[in-house]
Amino acid sequence: MQRPFELDPRIVRDSVAIGRLPLCLVRLHRDARYPWVMLVPERAEVREIHELGAEDRGALIEESSAVAAVMQTMTGAQKMNVAALGNMVPQLHVHHVARFEGDDAWPGAIWGQHPALDYSDEALAERVDALRRAFAPIAGFEPQPSESETR
Amino acid sequence: MQRPFELDPRIVRDSVAIGRLPLCLVRLHRDARYPWVMLVPERAEVREIHELGAEDRGALIEESSAVAAVMQTMTGAQKMNVAALGNMVPQLHVHHVARFEGDDAWPGAIWGQHPALDYSDEALAERVDALRRAFAPIAGFEPQPSESETR
Repeated sequence: MQRPFELDPRIVRDSVAIGRLPLCLVRLHRDARYPWVMLVPERAEVREIHELGAEDRGALIEESSAVAAVMQTMTGAQKMNVAALGNMVPQLHVHHVARFEGDDAWPGAIWGQHPALDYSDEALAERVDALRRAFAPIAGFEPQPSESETR
Repeated sequence: MQRPFELDPRIVRDSVAIGRLPLCLVRLHRDARYPWVMLVPERAEVREIHELGAEDRGALIEESSAVAAVMQTMTGAQKMNVAALGNMVPQLHVHHVARFEGDDAWPGAIWGQHPALDYSDEALAERVDALRRAFAPIAGFEPQPSESETR
């Protein structure tokens, strides 16, 4: 029997809830350097995109594309970086990072370049709120309270 | 009118042809540190996954998943890293990198860590040949001669 889905504690620690799509949890990564949203399919014990079933794979690319398109429109990013890495946290999660000429890692990749920069509580709440409103038109999106709001 | 598809010269320089899938060109990145395959959708002027049409997005995730699954099986990789970055070469291309505990960048991301390590001609030809055989069962895969073979 498959175990029920449980979010990896490292993902809980490093991100806050924005909402939920039919397949994925939508979370903001706690790094104020970049607008950075993670999608986490609510499927237990899946580490790789290719381990998802065909229907889930289709849902993933649609949810990912909708999130990336909204992020690029709202931020005016030059480029979206979309990546499933997971060498350290193998629970499948897909990064969506809005990139700008002159951001802290441009034009390189963001991983391993700089330690995460904390959001102030106010800036975090503002960004989460802005993303919730921006993602609202995506089919099936439901906002969720972030952990910091319910602490 | 849309311009016909033309591979970015930097992609031509940094990789060699393995074959073609219905949507994507399949190319080996010239870095012997990692088994590293790129998929390049043959669509002109597309920079982001979300700019592809819905049908192409579905084809992309199916082709990407098939390639990643084969690479993981053939190499025994601990983890596949799948990423569309494109800050330097905006033509849409999706990296598929087989990762191993103890590889040169483990557990970090591979970008910006080490300069590419050249394959010997023999090692390059062997890897391309092994990948062509491994990808042969993927629906719609057609091997292509690599540029180094036709020079």
